[in-house]
Amino acid sequence: MLSVEWTASQGWLAPRITPYQNLSLDPATCVFHYAFECFEGMKAYKNSRGQVRLFRPEKNMMRFNKSSARIALPNFTGKAFIELISKFAAMEERFIPAAPGYSLYLRPTMIGTQRSLGVGPPGSALLYMIASPVGPYYPTGFRAVSLEATDYAVRAWPGGVGDMKLGANYAPCIIPQLQAAKRGFHQNLWLFGEEEYVTEAGTMNFFAAIQDKETGKKKLMTAPLDGTILEGVMRDSVLDLARERLKPEGWEVEERKFTMAELASAADDGRLLEAFGTGTAAVVSPVRRIGWKGRMVECGLKENQEAGDVTKKMKAWIEGIQYGDEEHPWSWKI
Amino acid sequence: MLSVEWTASQGWLAPRITPYQNLSLDPATCVFHYAFECFEGMKAYKNSRGQVRLFRPEKNMMRFNKSSARIALPNFTGKAFIELISKFAAMEERFIPAAPGYSLYLRPTMIGTQRSLGVGPPGSALLYMIASPVGPYYPTGFRAVSLEATDYAVRAWPGGVGDMKLGANYAPCIIPQLQAAKRGFHQNLWLFGEEEYVTEAGTMNFFAAIQDKETGKKKLMTAPLDGTILEGVMRDSVLDLARERLKPEGWEVEERKFTMAELASAADDGRLLEAFGTGTAAVVSPVRRIGWKGRMVECGLKENQEAGDVTKKMKAWIEGIQYGDEEHPWSWKI
Repeated sequence: MLSVEWTASQGWLAPRITPYQNLSLDPATCVFHYAFECFEGMKAYKNSRGQVRLFRPEKNMMRFNKSSARIALPNFTGKAFIELISKFAAMEERFIPAAPGYSLYLRPTMIGTQRSLGVGPPGSALLYMIASPVGPYYPTGFRAVSLEATDYAVRAWPGGVGDMKLGANYAPCIIPQLQAAKRGFHQNLWLFGEEEYVTEAGTMNFFAAIQDKETGKKKLMTAPLDGTILEGVMRDSVLDLARERLKPEGWEVEERKFTMAELASAADDGRLLEAFGTGTAAVVSPVRRIGWKGRMVECGLKENQEAGDVTKKMKAWIEGIQYGDEEHPWSWKI
Repeated sequence: MLSVEWTASQGWLAPRITPYQNLSLDPATCVFHYAFECFEGMKAYKNSRGQVRLFRPEKNMMRFNKSSARIALPNFTGKAFIELISKFAAMEERFIPAAPGYSLYLRPTMIGTQRSLGVGPPGSALLYMIASPVGPYYPTGFRAVSLEATDYAVRAWPGGVGDMKLGANYAPCIIPQLQAAKRGFHQNLWLFGEEEYVTEAGTMNFFAAIQDKETGKKKLMTAPLDGTILEGVMRDSVLDLARERLKPEGWEVEERKFTMAELASAADDGRLLEAFGTGTAAVVSPVRRIGWKGRMVECGLKENQEAGDVTKKMKAWIEGIQYGDEEHPWSWKI
C-alpha cells in the first residue's frame, strides 16, 4: 500500500510504499464519526506486450481533489500523485494480469485522522492507496441487469454533495439497494423530483439510446452534470467517443434532463433502442429493463440478447484504448 | 472504552470494557470508504450528593437504532445498551465531575468493519463507546451566537438521511461552516427550498419565540420532523416543557414550517422575542442575530443581554432535571 500523511502544520510528509497493513487509529478519530473520507476507483491495465497503462488518471485526480476540498481535506498535486501511482503499479506489476478484461484495481482513499469529537476541519489526514487484481466484470460476456426506478429514497440534491466521490454518498444507498434486490432488481435507478428525472443507476451513470419521435433520428442521452450525479470518467469517455464516432453515423448526443415517463413512452413506441450504465468496474453495463410504478419498461434487448450495439461498441472502443490496442491520449503508458 | 463486536453469522459477541485503545482496522474496511458509521451524543451527570444520572437515554437508543438500520448496520437492544452504559458510568464515576454544568460526555459509535470494497451491507460491525469529562459549554454564562442563513449548500432533503445521526451528515457541513465563520458567524442556519424554510442551526435544532401579528399571543416554534431535521432529544424536551410549563402562561407551542422571511418580518415589527438552538452540548444556545441576504435579522436580545427569558428558563428546567434537583422521569438514576 501507498501512504502519505498530512498535517495542517507540516503539510504532506514523505510518501511511503509499505506492505499491506492495518491502520491503527484512535477511536475518537474524525473519520469514524463525521465521515471525513473520499476515494477514487481506477485501474492499471497490462496488455499482451507487457505494457502497463492507466486510463485518464488526471480525471480521477481532478475529482479526488474536488471531493477532498468539499469536506475540508487537503489537496494533493494530481501530477505528483499520478507519479506515485505509476511507481506503485510498476513495483506491483506482477499483480496485474496480462489478459483482456483483467486489471489491477486501485483505490486511492483519503481519511481525516484528527483525534477530536469537535465538528471542524481535520488537522491531519492520511492519503493511502490499496490495490487488488480483478477479473472481467462479466466473465461469460455481457449480462444485462434490471433496475428499479426509485423515488422514495433520494440519493442526491442540488446544493448537496452527490457529484463527489465521498463515503457519505454510499452507506445511505444500501437499504434501497437491498429493497430493490428483494423485488428482483440488480440496482436502483435514482429518480429526482416530482418530474421523476432519471439521474444515475446504482453506482453507475446512466445512458439511454432512443429514436426521436419527430425526426426519427437516433439519440444517445445522459443526465447533465447539475450537481446531483457523479462526474464519471467513463461517462465523460462515452460522451466523447459518441460525439467522435457515433455522430458521423447520424447519431445525436445529448446531455440533458429526461424523465422516466419519457423513457417509458419511448419504450412503448419501440423507440427505446438500448440503455446502459457506465463506471470503472464494468466500463459499460447493459440494462434489460426498469421496474417503474408496477410496470416493466423494456430497454430494447431481445430475449436472447445481452447488450445493444452502442453498448458493445463502447466496450470495445474503451477497452481497446485501456489496453493500448488503439494508441490514444487517454491511455497513459507507465 | 466499551466495545461490542457483531458479525452477520454470530450476532452480537460479549461486550467488553477495556482501557482506551486504538482500533486496528484493515485499510479496505468499509467504514473508511462508504461511511458506514453512526453515533449518539449523551452525558452522565453527577450531583452534589454523588448521584450519577443519565438524561432520557432511551431516546438516544431509539435514534441510534434508527440511524444504524438506515445504513444496514445492526440494531442493539436499547435496554441492554443502557445497562452497559450504566455499568460503564458507574466504573468511570471518578471521571464525572460533581458540579453544575459539568458531566461525562458519552459517545456511542457504530462502524461497519467488513473488509471489502464491494458496496453492500456490512457483514461485521463494531459498537463502541468512548467518554470524556466536559465542562460547561459557556463557562462564563450564556454567550449568544450569530448564525448565517445558508441557502447555497443544502444539509438535508426529503427522502434523504438528514434526520439520522450518521457520519455522512457532518463532513459536508464543514466548508459552509468555515465560510460562515469567515464572514463572522458562529454557525449556519440551514434554509431549505425556494421558500427558504428554516430547518436547523449548525448541529443544533432551532427555536424562535415570536409574538403573533394578529392575536398578539406569544408563540414558541420549531420546524417539524419532516425528515430534513435531526430528531433532537433536547428539541423534544424543550417542546414538552414548553407545552407543560409555558402554555399555562399563555404561550402557544408550534411544530410547523416557517420561513426566513417570516422570522425577518417578525424582527422588523419587534415581534421576534428570542431565538435559540438546542442540543446535548449546550442544552440551549441563545442566538443574537442571523445574517440573511446582506442584512442582519436581530433576534430580540438587548446589547447587554446574552439570553432571552425562555432560553434561561429552559436551561434551568432541563439542568435541574439532569442533575436530579427536580425528580423527573427523564432523569435515570444509575
